[in-house]
Amino acid sequence: MHSLPSQAIRPLSLSSSSSTSLYLRSISSTFSVSPFFNLQSPVFAAISSRLRRSTVRSCSSITAKPSSEIRRTRPNNDEPDSKLRALRDLFSKPDIGIDAYIIPSQDAHQSEFIAECYMRRAYISGFTGSAGTAVVTSDKAALWTDGRYFLQAEKQLNSSWTLMRAGNHGVPTPSEWLADILAPGGVVGIDPFLFSADAAEDLKETVSRKNHKLVYLYDYNLVDEIWKDSRPKPPRGPIRVHDLRYAGLDVASKLASLRSELKEAGSSAIIISVLDEIAWLLNLRGSDVPNSPVMYAYLLVELDGAKLFVDNCKVTSEVMDHLKTAGVELRPYDSIISAIENLAEKGANLWLDTSSINAAIANAYRSACDKYFIRLGNKRKGKGKTSETSNSQVGPTGVYKSSPISMAKAIKNYAELEGMRNSHLRDAAALAQFWFWLEQEILNGVKLTEVEVADKLLEFRKKQDGFVDTSFDTISASGANGAIIHYKPEPSDCSVVDANKLFLLDSGAQYVDGTTDITRTVHFGEPTTRQKECFTRVLQGHIALDQAVFPQDTPGFVLDAFARSSLWKIGLDYRHGTGHGVGAALNVHEGPQSISFRFGNMTGLHSGMIVSNEPGYYEDHSFGIRIENLLIVKDADTPNHFGGIGYLGFEKLTFVPIQTKLVDITLLSVEEVNWLNDYHSQVWEKVSPLLEGSARQWLWNNTRPLMKS
Amino acid sequence: MHSLPSQAIRPLSLSSSSSTSLYLRSISSTFSVSPFFNLQSPVFAAISSRLRRSTVRSCSSITAKPSSEIRRTRPNNDEPDSKLRALRDLFSKPDIGIDAYIIPSQDAHQSEFIAECYMRRAYISGFTGSAGTAVVTSDKAALWTDGRYFLQAEKQLNSSWTLMRAGNHGVPTPSEWLADILAPGGVVGIDPFLFSADAAEDLKETVSRKNHKLVYLYDYNLVDEIWKDSRPKPPRGPIRVHDLRYAGLDVASKLASLRSELKEAGSSAIIISVLDEIAWLLNLRGSDVPNSPVMYAYLLVELDGAKLFVDNCKVTSEVMDHLKTAGVELRPYDSIISAIENLAEKGANLWLDTSSINAAIANAYRSACDKYFIRLGNKRKGKGKTSETSNSQVGPTGVYKSSPISMAKAIKNYAELEGMRNSHLRDAAALAQFWFWLEQEILNGVKLTEVEVADKLLEFRKKQDGFVDTSFDTISASGANGAIIHYKPEPSDCSVVDANKLFLLDSGAQYVDGTTDITRTVHFGEPTTRQKECFTRVLQGHIALDQAVFPQDTPGFVLDAFARSSLWKIGLDYRHGTGHGVGAALNVHEGPQSISFRFGNMTGLHSGMIVSNEPGYYEDHSFGIRIENLLIVKDADTPNHFGGIGYLGFEKLTFVPIQTKLVDITLLSVEEVNWLNDYHSQVWEKVSPLLEGSARQWLWNNTRPLMKS
Repeated sequence: MHSLPSQAIRPLSLSSSSSTSLYLRSISSTFSVSPFFNLQSPVFAAISSRLRRSTVRSCSSITAKPSSEIRRTRPNNDEPDSKLRALRDLFSKPDIGIDAYIIPSQDAHQSEFIAECYMRRAYISGFTGSAGTAVVTSDKAALWTDGRYFLQAEKQLNSSWTLMRAGNHGVPTPSEWLADILAPGGVVGIDPFLFSADAAEDLKETVSRKNHKLVYLYDYNLVDEIWKDSRPKPPRGPIRVHDLRYAGLDVASKLASLRSELKEAGSSAIIISVLDEIAWLLNLRGSDVPNSPVMYAYLLVELDGAKLFVDNCKVTSEVMDHLKTAGVELRPYDSIISAIENLAEKGANLWLDTSSINAAIANAYRSACDKYFIRLGNKRKGKGKTSETSNSQVGPTGVYKSSPISMAKAIKNYAELEGMRNSHLRDAAALAQFWFWLEQEILNGVKLTEVEVADKLLEFRKKQDGFVDTSFDTISASGANGAIIHYKPEPSDCSVVDANKLFLLDSGAQYVDGTTDITRTVHFGEPTTRQKECFTRVLQGHIALDQAVFPQDTPGFVLDAFARSSLWKIGLDYRHGTGHGVGAALNVHEGPQSISFRFGNMTGLHSGMIVSNEPGYYEDHSFGIRIENLLIVKDADTPNHFGGIGYLGFEKLTFVPIQTKLVDITLLSVEEVNWLNDYHSQVWEKVSPLLEGSARQWLWNNTRPLMKS
Repeated sequence: MHSLPSQAIRPLSLSSSSSTSLYLRSISSTFSVSPFFNLQSPVFAAISSRLRRSTVRSCSSITAKPSSEIRRTRPNNDEPDSKLRALRDLFSKPDIGIDAYIIPSQDAHQSEFIAECYMRRAYISGFTGSAGTAVVTSDKAALWTDGRYFLQAEKQLNSSWTLMRAGNHGVPTPSEWLADILAPGGVVGIDPFLFSADAAEDLKETVSRKNHKLVYLYDYNLVDEIWKDSRPKPPRGPIRVHDLRYAGLDVASKLASLRSELKEAGSSAIIISVLDEIAWLLNLRGSDVPNSPVMYAYLLVELDGAKLFVDNCKVTSEVMDHLKTAGVELRPYDSIISAIENLAEKGANLWLDTSSINAAIANAYRSACDKYFIRLGNKRKGKGKTSETSNSQVGPTGVYKSSPISMAKAIKNYAELEGMRNSHLRDAAALAQFWFWLEQEILNGVKLTEVEVADKLLEFRKKQDGFVDTSFDTISASGANGAIIHYKPEPSDCSVVDANKLFLLDSGAQYVDGTTDITRTVHFGEPTTRQKECFTRVLQGHIALDQAVFPQDTPGFVLDAFARSSLWKIGLDYRHGTGHGVGAALNVHEGPQSISFRFGNMTGLHSGMIVSNEPGYYEDHSFGIRIENLLIVKDADTPNHFGGIGYLGFEKLTFVPIQTKLVDITLLSVEEVNWLNDYHSQVWEKVSPLLEGSARQWLWNNTRPLMKS
């Protein structure tokens, strides 16, 4: 419950996209979001206080649903005009009084995958793509999305909505658009849970440059107000303990390290809101959202204790014991704001990563600090200054630094790496079974849709030990669909996998011990010369990055050009990054590192990090090619160490054949042919013990060396 | 003459290095300044008003002097303590009143090569290296320089000075150091001509964060005050017209383009202070400084006229006619400040590139604008607002944008490229003659010093048509000297070229039609396995960059890793950028593009730009290797144009053999061997027609193909 007055409205500015885009988490520059098309408005969906008081439904199991089922549960938007009308009716209410309302995609934790009850933008606009920002004024409604979703948005938006094609020349950002269309002095409302503290700060600073006011609507999420009973209930799936043999480090040790960092930074507490950071730190895994094994929670770590803010129903007795052992107390998810205020009241210096903590929390702390100092001032006036207060800390002060968890989580320990290696072998076995099955089906003339194929893959994976979930929605794309980089086949509207076209399959799984993410592109018949040339050049890029050696701390973008060089030679390229970080039995996309042509991410690569290696090539309306392995960053053991530093290279995690039918061997150097043959020999060696029968034979057939004449 | 009161002292802040280093011109990130060691204080040597009134000496000829002679003319510092005493005596003068004084290296135009009379930092400190900042307080004197110069500075500084090894861990920046050692409220003085407007602005903004004051000393350059009569006179060499057949575009056309850019930007005038920009725009070449064919001048271009501020004695009648034809009037160099003020008085909107224009000029314009508006305000009070003033521009406004000349100059036209190609062939002929001569001398056991060898190279170049000057001080380095990246042999203290060690020669020339810059590394005897491995890997990097194809507008740093990749594989690297821009018969280092591991320079590469390709490897106390060609950026004519854009590649300008004795052919791929053989075949084809006799035979012998078994 917020302690702020229910009608509190605070003026803020609307910032321009160019500056606010800096506040998007680094994860958004990875493959998960097409790098050309980051949405500009850093607004993150809020959890309203009302929602947090809503009724509880029974905890669900962890089992993953086939894609087809998940999709069927999405809201069906057939009354968009009435929704807009209802929303606008709220604008003029005396305690609201706004001229426009911004509805972003995200939840309050900046999660990539979010629970359905937080999909407010999809509800209000009807557009169900993963990225988009809706803005509604008294007479206009506009939706911004990026190139991945233009077609989908055109289909899903009704005539009340204007589609704003973000990234296209001349298309204004939401704030530019609002500045243009609102009458001077316009009032734009947002839910403060939807903005990171940085974004809000930025808005505040630019307020004077725009002739409009931005206000925080603390107690109203206007979409929730109109969504009412049809709104899905918040997820309440059970939390499980992440076994120490996979985590490698117990919670007490992790908390001890964190606390020494807190002390070093002069802080006495830290608030963590990023869900995979909480899961990693507490060796817990949740089931609140598809693909990411996390639970909705906040974590407050103090020097002498820690509190997990989470809905009680998710906490099993095992988890309860686990937390108790680690000295972590439970608090209701809803009570985070008052806990933050209490913290300030007792004078704690709170560490806040303002790029991830939402404005509601950050402002609650700041306001409480202000109150503390006012109270202190009054006391001093009465009592005079004591030597105690002048010598010791005089009051609570925010420590504004990046989260220390992000890097600790990115650099995997021995057990995490072992879990990743093992789960990748089991995943490879499932894939070998799958590919054998699919080739047979196609050979037998069976017509299978892209969704059917994805569902069958899920079946094979489910049979593997420790399977938990898919790690993202499978991209199963035949022919021209492969050219849509973030294609997601819908059961109602997807293609049959065509024996005479390229087939691109990008998929991954969550296992108890690791997370996988792999893309292979195959042809079931005779590929064209063009397809072979493109595939071979993508492969050359994949090999060049795989074989790279580089000084420690090199930012990933330095390596990006290695993966493109072969394509560039004939005037080809691809419009996405080359690599993203991957969690260990956690989110398939994680920061802080990335390998991308976007040059803003200066995070250096470290031994123990995991990155994907996924160059591609996409020919519109024709085909798509991508070859993706996951890699561990490791010491390269070079004979020299110029500069007195270590040099790094990569160890492969993914062991699944690359279709040699698509390779034009005349384009490859001897070294590249050797790489491919060596890779396939490793695939056979590592994965064949996990297979038998025809799948094993398939693996043998598909790992035979190529000979360069 | 400044119109500011003679005792004007304005408070400014001392900024921290981290922010001010952003203001260093992009050129400083090229090879000319070792990229690890940019000095942090963006202070640029001023031309004091007194200096500009000093007596005239007769104009010198354009002929280049041998390195040995140039060096002998440098000041001999034998009384450092008395200089410091004299300087400090000035601190307490009532119209000065400072506690510290900063003396930077540069002139008022941010030139790389500066006239001796502006070498104030060298005069006061005794340290003659090209980069350094001296700071003198009432009881301390400290000199900052970078890793290239630590040894030299140790030798040259006397005990009154503390050497600050910039870039070393824990070494404070000048401003950090001053902030530490000065008593609170300390006053630091600078000459406003020494700071770019950006740097000054930055200082102003940070004043509140430091407990010290920075003041502009407008009328005193304290070093000049104590240097007095021993100070060299300012250069007065003649200006010459740069022939249209080399320039390719007449001045009227260039001015017309510039004026349309002025109009587009809403400005009515532009002030240009960067010397090679003035030379390029006016098709003029000067002889004021060694290596760079430029003249000290400012250029003011208005919509209806242009004024060149230059000392009259440098202007021949031919130049006078040339300028007249282009509509350019002459003004005394000293009168720039009053001209700027007049401009503001008549309401002109002046375009200033605040990264290059010094603070004295920028502030003169701002002050005059302020006065204009005060006057206007007074007038309006008297007369009331007229419809004319409310409809039209209300007064002078600065247009703060990057100089439009920099990019126009960087993208060479057909004639400039032809001049570059032709001059490189003549230069290659001179180098073939030189290398044949040197090999013979060494074979005959003649002992030659590094300086004698450099002087002989100059002799060969002087014989070539159109030779003007060297383009930088020749780096002639035997054995371990080659590991000192910016080694400059001094006649008094240089090595004999050792027949049994690697010899690195980095040199270049100014011709009437082009500028060259080439490095070759050779061994006269038997190279070690280690030397061959390192040389071969440097060569592989050189080839990888040479062969790169990339999308138009790719920033150079994206390509940098191509040149390092082979070295990285065995844990080696080099501590300098890979490529810098080169002027066409102009400065050997020019921006805005560069190819470097420093990621700040986002300038995209364009067809028509020129860059160097110069990877290297340096083994301390042992040897240095560098292989440098100049390249033209050109359309790559790829079969595809993904993204609807052009793809670029390189055309070689430099045609001098690479010593195959140093190549370990087992390390090279077939493609790399082919590159080398193809290059040598082109060298023979292009350069042999310019040679005869033994030099021609030498070229034949050194362009024979290698065979990979």
